[in-house]
Amino acid sequence: MVYVNEKIKNTYRVPQPEGRGKYIRLDQNENSDGLPKWLVDSVMEKVTPEFLAIYPEESIPTEKYAKQLGLEKENATLTCGSSVGMGYVIKVFGEPGKDILCVTPSFAMYEVYAKMIGMNVRQLKYNDDFSYDIDQTLSAINENTGIVVLVNPNMPVGNVYSPDDIRKVIEKAGEYNALVIIDEAYYYFFDKTSVALVKEYDNVVVLRTFSKMLSMPALRLGSIISTAENIQYINNYKPHYTVNSIALLFCEAIVDNHDRLLAELTEQYNEGKEYVLAKLKEYDYVTIPSEGCYVCIKPKHKTSREITDLLQENGILILCGKDGLTGWLRLTIAHKKYMEIFMDALLKLDQE
Amino acid sequence: MVYVNEKIKNTYRVPQPEGRGKYIRLDQNENSDGLPKWLVDSVMEKVTPEFLAIYPEESIPTEKYAKQLGLEKENATLTCGSSVGMGYVIKVFGEPGKDILCVTPSFAMYEVYAKMIGMNVRQLKYNDDFSYDIDQTLSAINENTGIVVLVNPNMPVGNVYSPDDIRKVIEKAGEYNALVIIDEAYYYFFDKTSVALVKEYDNVVVLRTFSKMLSMPALRLGSIISTAENIQYINNYKPHYTVNSIALLFCEAIVDNHDRLLAELTEQYNEGKEYVLAKLKEYDYVTIPSEGCYVCIKPKHKTSREITDLLQENGILILCGKDGLTGWLRLTIAHKKYMEIFMDALLKLDQE
Repeated sequence: MVYVNEKIKNTYRVPQPEGRGKYIRLDQNENSDGLPKWLVDSVMEKVTPEFLAIYPEESIPTEKYAKQLGLEKENATLTCGSSVGMGYVIKVFGEPGKDILCVTPSFAMYEVYAKMIGMNVRQLKYNDDFSYDIDQTLSAINENTGIVVLVNPNMPVGNVYSPDDIRKVIEKAGEYNALVIIDEAYYYFFDKTSVALVKEYDNVVVLRTFSKMLSMPALRLGSIISTAENIQYINNYKPHYTVNSIALLFCEAIVDNHDRLLAELTEQYNEGKEYVLAKLKEYDYVTIPSEGCYVCIKPKHKTSREITDLLQENGILILCGKDGLTGWLRLTIAHKKYMEIFMDALLKLDQE
Repeated sequence: MVYVNEKIKNTYRVPQPEGRGKYIRLDQNENSDGLPKWLVDSVMEKVTPEFLAIYPEESIPTEKYAKQLGLEKENATLTCGSSVGMGYVIKVFGEPGKDILCVTPSFAMYEVYAKMIGMNVRQLKYNDDFSYDIDQTLSAINENTGIVVLVNPNMPVGNVYSPDDIRKVIEKAGEYNALVIIDEAYYYFFDKTSVALVKEYDNVVVLRTFSKMLSMPALRLGSIISTAENIQYINNYKPHYTVNSIALLFCEAIVDNHDRLLAELTEQYNEGKEYVLAKLKEYDYVTIPSEGCYVCIKPKHKTSREITDLLQENGILILCGKDGLTGWLRLTIAHKKYMEIFMDALLKLDQE
């Protein structure tokens, strides 16, 4: 029997759902309608057999992307989705034996990556009302802290960290040479960003994705933003040619058409959000306040498991809460037409 | 200053060439004309904004792909290109402190990945006539061997390992619980494969790519083939959603149209190969025999550096040999129209 790295051998990975195409998908925080057709058409007309026959080139898209963030090209590197990017960050900057501080529940891959390299995962908990007290994070930072993760807004609870909270965490972490990862997967839904902090602090990494508001999860594109020195270390680790050329074309097109595109995407999203939150309130559903494109809802009559299963039988996927969210439903907020379908189904199914 | 993994901090990565689109590209073993238009069109018509707005699903393409190789779906996993795949294999099965045996020159990333996890790279050399004696590999395998790499055909020298040689290496490696990676990036140009050996041996991993004969380097698709148990360990390590959905559509289309497609691609390739090898012989150029889609050529009058630079000035990219191939040119064999352009330029430029 060949040698297998023990930590990898014993890693458990949650299987990803498949066969989702036939459902109304309100479970994975996708924008099911995707990017506007005018943008997709403008990119796809460049995709020819010859275009597909050349290795990807990242320099120009990376530079355009960084400039749009107000940074230099040396401050960013593009990744094959954001979760691959967080893996790079943990493998490059994670010190075996040290702590990674996360909030639970949150995005599961931080824990998976950290355990694989032998870090200790310290999971900080929400208050009973799903508020989060930043003093918990601050008091947990000590000489054994290697990495602090702030998913902002967090997921599946949509709480956010204020700019002031974020600075406090960065500065406290800095006293112990610990890195702070600020995961902005849900940027644009929440409009405050920490990107500019990479110009002030050398212990900050910001992660972004093109899979949520930017609506192209199929193409796998994310980014890592930090100091030029930190990005150089990431690039030492990152394999060549991990971002495909079509994703790179979209990256450029999104930067080139940024304001028009975001105005369209935001308007459609806000319409759906206003509708569904008003309806949930009208029907006295308890929800957890959220700045992300998702909301946790307490069913009134049936259990969250029953509702989730009944919705699936009716062609609608949502998530059933677990790990501190047992009893809750998590709904992806999408365009109004999907929110109408969801509300009609919920009201019909959530009966004694 | 935050902690940085020392091995990653000190890794040197060769920058990848950019701005290649405006050249005739005979340097990276691409098929510049790409896949046939009928195949590309049949896939691209499925790519809509909605299609791009859903996370990739690998199960069906993986199963189809494995079946086409005569294997079960549990024997394969798809990767974001082959070089990402080889990274997974080394990180999962590579034991720090043990040896990885490679031939030099060869594909550089084996060394990069192995050093990153603290393996010792043992580079075995060619004979002076660029033949390779498998006894070198066999006698180098001992209790400190962790991984043996056979790139078959190797690159940039296009030597191959016979089925008998490969079995000998696997069995000798097996005595020491060492893994054998058989890198078949240049399969189809050379038509012998070791894929079926994963049914006989538990210490064999085969790597494949869709970037060479299958002509879609821009889309980043490769595969790892091994026992179900080994593939499970790889999947423990592999992040979710690393292969983009367009690559997955192409994977299915290539399997569905396999024989017709390969007949077309092979015919075009063979025409170019026959032409260029005959011309090189006609003009008394010394070449190294190769079973890959590349051939090493000794210039007659100028140095390899001079010829490479002059060709680039004339709009043609090729590689200038190094690391044991100093003084040689490496040419990617492509369709006849490109080979004609190359030969005309070579004959014009390689003068006293």
